Amino acid sequence: MPTFEFSSVLSDAASFAAKPFAGYPPHHFVGGNIDEPTVPADALAEAVGNVIRTHGHALGKYGMDSGPQGYLPLRETIADYLERRAGMTVSPDEILMTSGSLQAMDLINKALLNKGDVVLVEAANYAGTLTKLDALGVEYIGIPLDENGMRMDALEQSLSNLQAQGRKPKYIFTIPTIQNPTGSIMPVERRKEMLALSKQYDVPIFEDDCYADLAFSGERPPAIHALDDDNRVVYCGTFSKSIAPALRVGYLVAPWPLMGHILPLKTDAGSGALEQMVLAEFLPDKFDAHVSGLMPMLEEKANVLCSSLDEHFGAIAEYEKPVGGIYLWVTLPDTIDTDRLFHLALQKGVEINPGSQWTVDGAANKHRMRICFGHPSVHSIREGIAQLAQVCFEEFGLPIRSGNIERT
Amino acid sequence: MPTFEFSSVLSDAASFAAKPFAGYPPHHFVGGNIDEPTVPADALAEAVGNVIRTHGHALGKYGMDSGPQGYLPLRETIADYLERRAGMTVSPDEILMTSGSLQAMDLINKALLNKGDVVLVEAANYAGTLTKLDALGVEYIGIPLDENGMRMDALEQSLSNLQAQGRKPKYIFTIPTIQNPTGSIMPVERRKEMLALSKQYDVPIFEDDCYADLAFSGERPPAIHALDDDNRVVYCGTFSKSIAPALRVGYLVAPWPLMGHILPLKTDAGSGALEQMVLAEFLPDKFDAHVSGLMPMLEEKANVLCSSLDEHFGAIAEYEKPVGGIYLWVTLPDTIDTDRLFHLALQKGVEINPGSQWTVDGAANKHRMRICFGHPSVHSIREGIAQLAQVCFEEFGLPIRSGNIERT
Repeated sequence: MPTFEFSSVLSDAASFAAKPFAGYPPHHFVGGNIDEPTVPADALAEAVGNVIRTHGHALGKYGMDSGPQGYLPLRETIADYLERRAGMTVSPDEILMTSGSLQAMDLINKALLNKGDVVLVEAANYAGTLTKLDALGVEYIGIPLDENGMRMDALEQSLSNLQAQGRKPKYIFTIPTIQNPTGSIMPVERRKEMLALSKQYDVPIFEDDCYADLAFSGERPPAIHALDDDNRVVYCGTFSKSIAPALRVGYLVAPWPLMGHILPLKTDAGSGALEQMVLAEFLPDKFDAHVSGLMPMLEEKANVLCSSLDEHFGAIAEYEKPVGGIYLWVTLPDTIDTDRLFHLALQKGVEINPGSQWTVDGAANKHRMRICFGHPSVHSIREGIAQLAQVCFEEFGLPIRSGNIERT
Repeated sequence: MPTFEFSSVLSDAASFAAKPFAGYPPHHFVGGNIDEPTVPADALAEAVGNVIRTHGHALGKYGMDSGPQGYLPLRETIADYLERRAGMTVSPDEILMTSGSLQAMDLINKALLNKGDVVLVEAANYAGTLTKLDALGVEYIGIPLDENGMRMDALEQSLSNLQAQGRKPKYIFTIPTIQNPTGSIMPVERRKEMLALSKQYDVPIFEDDCYADLAFSGERPPAIHALDDDNRVVYCGTFSKSIAPALRVGYLVAPWPLMGHILPLKTDAGSGALEQMVLAEFLPDKFDAHVSGLMPMLEEKANVLCSSLDEHFGAIAEYEKPVGGIYLWVTLPDTIDTDRLFHLALQKGVEINPGSQWTVDGAANKHRMRICFGHPSVHSIREGIAQLAQVCFEEFGLPIRSGNIERT
């Protein structure tokens, strides 16, 4: 049968081709999937049934009678939630519901960035941050991190260097609360320093608070947005990690008039109504208890991951013990190339994120890796890390010792 | 209080600013909103409760264990639905679930179009088609329509003219089944002619079948996709008009390998899960009966709209009686400027779509307007059209006669 050659009409943006989905490997240490038994399915089923029976007529209108920013009762309860948990004072009119925080990120980027612009980002970062900027033709400069997040001396140096070149970054992008991938939580004083630098150099801040509900202690500093007194912070958040990733309910917070410029760029006539309606029911009454119940489970998995690494990699795996979140950032000896380890481990059913994809300077971070513990079971963590150590030894001769067993 | 000036950092794409949502006017004859009592809220509530209780664990993974194309049980039932209703033979692997058909359109455009490309579209068109192409910097040539949809003689002429200039359009965009805004249904023979021209000139077809379920008779010709024997048709559809617009469940159908190039462009990590899961329950068992029940209600409203126009505008309002859909395309005398009528009527609580926004040659269509009857009640249609006639008379001196009343 003849077939039209769509390759002859592809745009420049469509150069990359995905392969068909082939399922997940047995030991799945990548991405934001969560542990399936922790999905509050019964509570969601009850909430969505209730809300559709009582407010289902609102489905008849795009935007559920709330306009293009999303379901108003949800935006109202998110404003309460942001005040309660992050110390933010936000009007529902400053909130736009999106299809996950990824769409929020796309919208903010589209509203602020032209090809050739420059932005400042944490030097180790969510891979999607970097690929989105790459796709836009935007230059990004990585600011080094320490155990408290983005380093302010390095940020000031970069701002000053750019100023000397007559350039101004379009924004400072930060994940201050459970940084991805390093897991750090930026202390409040450093948040204030970042705001001061943002003012001094007249550059706005883009704060991604996607993991902020996952501090194991239940305590978190106020958002940078909460400390800002002149509307220079654009903010995004999500319930993907705290409730369920497939729900796709994210949001962004932006002051008018920026919001007015973002809305025309959301060309999908709204994000899913049922997610928004169910969350409007779930968030005020059930969310805090749900997250409180989730934290000990996540913390236990983090502990199992750390002890598995200790057992199977020993001293060659360096990391900061997680205080929240669903990932661990691991530094291995320089002789280990995690790009290669990724490919070999995947063949054995273990998937990890190689450090080169999660850093601005990929070449300098080939000996690092991100390991997500949100989705795999405790059993899978133990099995998968043992398997990973074996693959690593076979290729790189390290780790020599796993637990009590010396490899030869 | 000082405020950061986001206007100083906006991108070129963000030049337009929306105003805050101010609700709908009393007589709302624009957009795809539907009649709220027709939302099958109880059936949706039951279906979503069932599916979350039994399959809610799948929410724990992005893509609900089905990968980036969307919930597999839904894609399977959409393949059945497309065969049953549109005569299409489609594999679930050729379907991508999207946030409404608007996101499908954005993705297809992004995959196929570069700035400066040219495409062929129906000369009267969905305004969103045109604004999306404008935003991409893509040139579009309007192909005239008659009562059977896009005219094939005009299409051939355009293809031939472009060929003579050494140019090839990236696609032929068509809404063949209940064309927006003219409401025509393209007969099967003309669909075959379009495919033959598409082959002859080696240009693919982008078929938008968003309204295809809304033929009052319940009968529709096979989709152009169904008649295609060499994978040259990209297709999109939605359940916004047949179930509820706020659900945001659209989809596109594309052959591999085009699908492989589209997937990386969907950067939101999936569309809403609950919409997909509820539709997977609703579509096989309840959809056909729901739509069958809806058609007489829509047809009645179309009839009320036509009789109201006849009563209040008389012979100066020309239109084709709708055979389906939710809109009517009305031609008024040349002396009436519907851009101006739009502004004046809105002040009186009546909103219409001026013809200039729904046509490629806006200036030549200022005496036309689109009137949607999906959302307003029968009462609102009668009241609103009477009001519109009064506003039109006050500004343009026409219509002189409304019903038995002669205006002076």
